[in-house]
Amino acid sequence: MIKILVDAMGGDNAPYATVAGAVQAVNKDKELHLILTGRQAEVNAELKKYSYDLSRVEVIDCPDVIDMNDSPTEAVKRKQSSLIAAYWLLKKEDDICALVTAGSTGATIVGGQLILGRIRGIKRPALCPAIPNSRGGVTLLVDCGANAECKSVMLCQFALLGTAYAKAGFNIKNPRVGLLNNGTEEHKGDPLRQETYKYLSEMKGIDFIGNVEGRDIMLGECDVVVADGFSGNIALKSIEGCGKLILSTLKREFTSSVSSKIGYLFIRKAIKRMRAQLDFDKAGGALLLGLKKPVIKSHGSSKPETIANSIANAAGIYRGKLIPAVEELLSDADFTVGDND
Amino acid sequence: MIKILVDAMGGDNAPYATVAGAVQAVNKDKELHLILTGRQAEVNAELKKYSYDLSRVEVIDCPDVIDMNDSPTEAVKRKQSSLIAAYWLLKKEDDICALVTAGSTGATIVGGQLILGRIRGIKRPALCPAIPNSRGGVTLLVDCGANAECKSVMLCQFALLGTAYAKAGFNIKNPRVGLLNNGTEEHKGDPLRQETYKYLSEMKGIDFIGNVEGRDIMLGECDVVVADGFSGNIALKSIEGCGKLILSTLKREFTSSVSSKIGYLFIRKAIKRMRAQLDFDKAGGALLLGLKKPVIKSHGSSKPETIANSIANAAGIYRGKLIPAVEELLSDADFTVGDND
Repeated sequence: MIKILVDAMGGDNAPYATVAGAVQAVNKDKELHLILTGRQAEVNAELKKYSYDLSRVEVIDCPDVIDMNDSPTEAVKRKQSSLIAAYWLLKKEDDICALVTAGSTGATIVGGQLILGRIRGIKRPALCPAIPNSRGGVTLLVDCGANAECKSVMLCQFALLGTAYAKAGFNIKNPRVGLLNNGTEEHKGDPLRQETYKYLSEMKGIDFIGNVEGRDIMLGECDVVVADGFSGNIALKSIEGCGKLILSTLKREFTSSVSSKIGYLFIRKAIKRMRAQLDFDKAGGALLLGLKKPVIKSHGSSKPETIANSIANAAGIYRGKLIPAVEELLSDADFTVGDND
Repeated sequence: MIKILVDAMGGDNAPYATVAGAVQAVNKDKELHLILTGRQAEVNAELKKYSYDLSRVEVIDCPDVIDMNDSPTEAVKRKQSSLIAAYWLLKKEDDICALVTAGSTGATIVGGQLILGRIRGIKRPALCPAIPNSRGGVTLLVDCGANAECKSVMLCQFALLGTAYAKAGFNIKNPRVGLLNNGTEEHKGDPLRQETYKYLSEMKGIDFIGNVEGRDIMLGECDVVVADGFSGNIALKSIEGCGKLILSTLKREFTSSVSSKIGYLFIRKAIKRMRAQLDFDKAGGALLLGLKKPVIKSHGSSKPETIANSIANAAGIYRGKLIPAVEELLSDADFTVGDND
């Protein structure tokens, strides 16, 4: 049995999407046991719409809901909110494996650090989405926004965390790690990048292939791209904007003439497939890496399918033994373990 | 008459592409007079292939060529190279308006600073491409790689330079300026972004709309996006990678079945149009903004059409009176003019 918490009130479409997604996930994976935190009456009203194994879905009443506009540090004090109550359960109950939320990113990060806590030796957790690449696989981008400012030790730890995630979550045997930089040559970038390059070159437990550029994320030149949360966020959002522009241009072009409309009839399946591939929000959320248990941050606009994928991703990460993989890599690495500042 | 220098030996396809592009440009614009710097015999051999107004194209013999692997600071000492000789001419001859090169970016930037020189009061030149956006216009990204490390005064000057370029090069009356950040809220980002936000809010001569995210570059939320060269480069390259992935996926999807192949016959024109729109290398190069005269850095892999577009862009910028526009904005702004460190 794999017990996973779902923040039923998190996201723009909650509790409809979270409940529907939870039901989809539990119907697909017979090992799953889901605990939904949220306003019991609302959640139960949604649950009633579907048929599923009642013994594998429970609801815990949390009268409070965190708003996207609430300050994260204030939000974590609200113990009766669906997200924070879930974090406390995740911390206290050994048999609960993971948490999935589509709620406030800030509150998820702060709650993860203050309530659940980091893996011993890890300085900061990082937000890590899996971005589809042109090789048919995914590229993990660590960090994409949890830490706007980074030191080189943090970036080195992101390399390690990403390596563990690639192994545990995607079954990649020897994940190749690249450092996101403004050029591939060794001397490129600011002092932070130059220093980190040196450390990564000497680090045990990772396969560092050198500097990579923004384009390499989607071209799949490596499996793990290490970035500070500021530039990682800019890379992720730039990719998102480009995808949106192209898809809207395609749509306009396909309706621009009679012949293109006819053409579209023949290729609409292909376009649909491509649209799905580009929609990496759907792919299963971003993992908040470095905490004591896996926490998946699903997009705020998550639909039922997105939530179901995020839950499946959380189960997969637990099955792949992410946390032991991180701990093993950490014990081989040179970081000063213990102070955990 | 508009006299423009073309580095005939710069780029992967030189002198074929540079000469062919120069001829295209000169045949299109009767006011143009081009001066090609490069190995005279090679350049003349290419020129012989075409018909054009001989009185408007001259060649200056430069036996030396800068390699992409040469160190920029060493390269600028090589006065007989096609790029550096062009810079000396640009500096000395008042009637020469601009320079176009597809050669080494590093040597172009260093040569621009050390030989041509900056506009009085400008701290650092910035590399600025025009990226097509979903509104059918372009978004100017300043800086996309000339300055990996920036201070807030530099970012504020980039806002000013971008505003002048939007006015002079694209006839945008009141260019909207955004600060590239990892979120739109005022408090977002690192201390550099927070400090710059404050300064930009108070700055005269620009229309600052606040923070923008990576996605807003292509969505066209503003006309000028201000970034340090590190994150600007990552945004630009991420967009490039995404575009490449989508176009290769499209190609694969269109050949994946008989019906999609038939469909492609109907929409190939639309796809070709889209491909051209995405290929912003072709659009006319990146302007090295902040120097005493316009310098256009065309992509290293420039084809004749790219070079012709870069030359046309240089002529347009000169006609639009970029340098006076910068000087006017500078005189209104609060920067300490004169030290020019």
